[in-house]
Amino acid sequence: MSAASQKTRVLTGITTTGTPHLGNYVGAIKPAIAASQDPTVQSYYFLADLHALIKCQDPQRVQESRLEIAATWLALGLDTDNAIFYRQSDVPEIPELTWMLSCVCAKGLMNRAHAYKAAVAENEAAGNQDPDKGITMGLFGYPVLMAADILMFNAHKVPVGRDQIQHIEMARDIAGRFNHLYKGDFFTQPEAVVDDNVATLNGLDGRKMSKSYNNTIPLFVAEKKLLKLVRKIKTNSLEPGEPKDPDTCTLFQIYSAFASVEETAAMRAEYQAGIGWGEAKNRLFEMLNEQLREPRERYLALMEDPGHIEQVLLKGAERARVEAAPFMDRLRHAAGLGRFV
Amino acid sequence: MSAASQKTRVLTGITTTGTPHLGNYVGAIKPAIAASQDPTVQSYYFLADLHALIKCQDPQRVQESRLEIAATWLALGLDTDNAIFYRQSDVPEIPELTWMLSCVCAKGLMNRAHAYKAAVAENEAAGNQDPDKGITMGLFGYPVLMAADILMFNAHKVPVGRDQIQHIEMARDIAGRFNHLYKGDFFTQPEAVVDDNVATLNGLDGRKMSKSYNNTIPLFVAEKKLLKLVRKIKTNSLEPGEPKDPDTCTLFQIYSAFASVEETAAMRAEYQAGIGWGEAKNRLFEMLNEQLREPRERYLALMEDPGHIEQVLLKGAERARVEAAPFMDRLRHAAGLGRFV
Repeated sequence: MSAASQKTRVLTGITTTGTPHLGNYVGAIKPAIAASQDPTVQSYYFLADLHALIKCQDPQRVQESRLEIAATWLALGLDTDNAIFYRQSDVPEIPELTWMLSCVCAKGLMNRAHAYKAAVAENEAAGNQDPDKGITMGLFGYPVLMAADILMFNAHKVPVGRDQIQHIEMARDIAGRFNHLYKGDFFTQPEAVVDDNVATLNGLDGRKMSKSYNNTIPLFVAEKKLLKLVRKIKTNSLEPGEPKDPDTCTLFQIYSAFASVEETAAMRAEYQAGIGWGEAKNRLFEMLNEQLREPRERYLALMEDPGHIEQVLLKGAERARVEAAPFMDRLRHAAGLGRFV
Repeated sequence: MSAASQKTRVLTGITTTGTPHLGNYVGAIKPAIAASQDPTVQSYYFLADLHALIKCQDPQRVQESRLEIAATWLALGLDTDNAIFYRQSDVPEIPELTWMLSCVCAKGLMNRAHAYKAAVAENEAAGNQDPDKGITMGLFGYPVLMAADILMFNAHKVPVGRDQIQHIEMARDIAGRFNHLYKGDFFTQPEAVVDDNVATLNGLDGRKMSKSYNNTIPLFVAEKKLLKLVRKIKTNSLEPGEPKDPDTCTLFQIYSAFASVEETAAMRAEYQAGIGWGEAKNRLFEMLNEQLREPRERYLALMEDPGHIEQVLLKGAERARVEAAPFMDRLRHAAGLGRFV
């Protein structure tokens, strides 16, 4: 066993259908990059582009998103010497394993998946005769692919949101079934790691910042555009001089996600002293712009050099396959699909 | 376009869960090997070992079956310079394509698959509360894998039994959907070729020869064992000298499947003249033994040399991948999963 394989393995997938925004950064990217620096951990980060096909059938959007996300993580300092950073679609062992796991995974398990049940419920609510209307086999079987993502590298821990806990349980179930059927200790039972203190940000309209609400502030936009977007953040009609409540204010929420404890306390005082919205917006813009300037420059340079990103990801896939390929050989052999000699 | 790609492409999968028997030979293997010699056709034959995992979770059985089937086809003269002969599990592009097709395949299509519906009906008849009891995602999604098998090589024709026509229709449906969604003429619509005159043989007990009835005569067994099995074929109690009906007789059916027209006519006359069952069995044994001796010797030699079979199959997989790998690149690119440069 190599030293790497004795480390705790933590695996994180990033679905490639959107452009990273401030909410993604604060809630997911920043803590993940920090976690990847832990020397006791072997991190795996992958662009979940096979998953993206379920949600997005606009090839240009998927392609752009993959590039933007890769450039974002690299610009923010993901240490790709330490973490293994790859595109899911560059590791053919993953769909191979997906099929093998399909053959030991009860269909009934998928029938009970929340995402599938929600889609059926939506069809029923809309009065559709076919409860499976618009549901693809990709959507239905998605937890099996996710199990393969995790089990391929025998990840110990998978940081997820509450809505994904069920999928980790399914991966555990499938792992146990395979181990039992083929009489071996092939797969580690992965563990969901749920952080209930994940920071979330609100968007331009005050609802949670989310691509689906079309209320996001992209992480890396030109200064002018960033200023324009910050100015669009919804505030109330209080005049300069009137005291304002920071705790219900999107501007303050975003500010404090980027500011130090001291800066946040100072801004809180300014709210009580009646800072005007225009001024508060300028201050937020300056804070963001200051913090994002350097990574934005790196991001823009990376976006101009897709060949470099390609090389980084191919190198990551190579490292991933150094583990995945011999493991798949072992699994194939266990199922009766080994080489004849 | 190469000359090969202008030929009609015919694709045949062989599920690797059993040992080839006389019925397989007469009904499927012999005509397929003959068809592969047609110079206007590019044939693809593959050991459907990923499919085997659905039906058989005994690794040793799957492994033996793969070896026996490969040795059988080679012993019987499959021309592997002409036909492309490979193991499905050696072509990782197939499960990759399976996932991509899953994302365009309606779940409702699979709900209507005969094999799945039959399994549900069986559960309902048995009074099982869960209609999906014992049904895996592999069984449920099997038509998507079969579509990938076919579409990977843009097969024009797929020889199948009547029970498989629906799966070819599903492959056509999935192909059309992908072409439409990704705005290209990626996939040829495959055509099912059903031969209603497929010869079938009865087994030891007079029912159709089939592994599931445990009434088969394996194609290549030692002489002594072959004689013993032929002697076990069920006949009636008519004595030597009494005229016998060849048309309801398993012995005669098997004999005529191997004999020339003249030999068959002569045997028919002997039935009318009252040939004894012992004598008829000896004559069948001699006919079979005579015809199977040479391929059996080749088969046994091949079974002693699994390394050679491995090389033949790896070479076949290499040829298959010369087509599959660039095609998958094209498909990935079309879906937004292409390289960045």
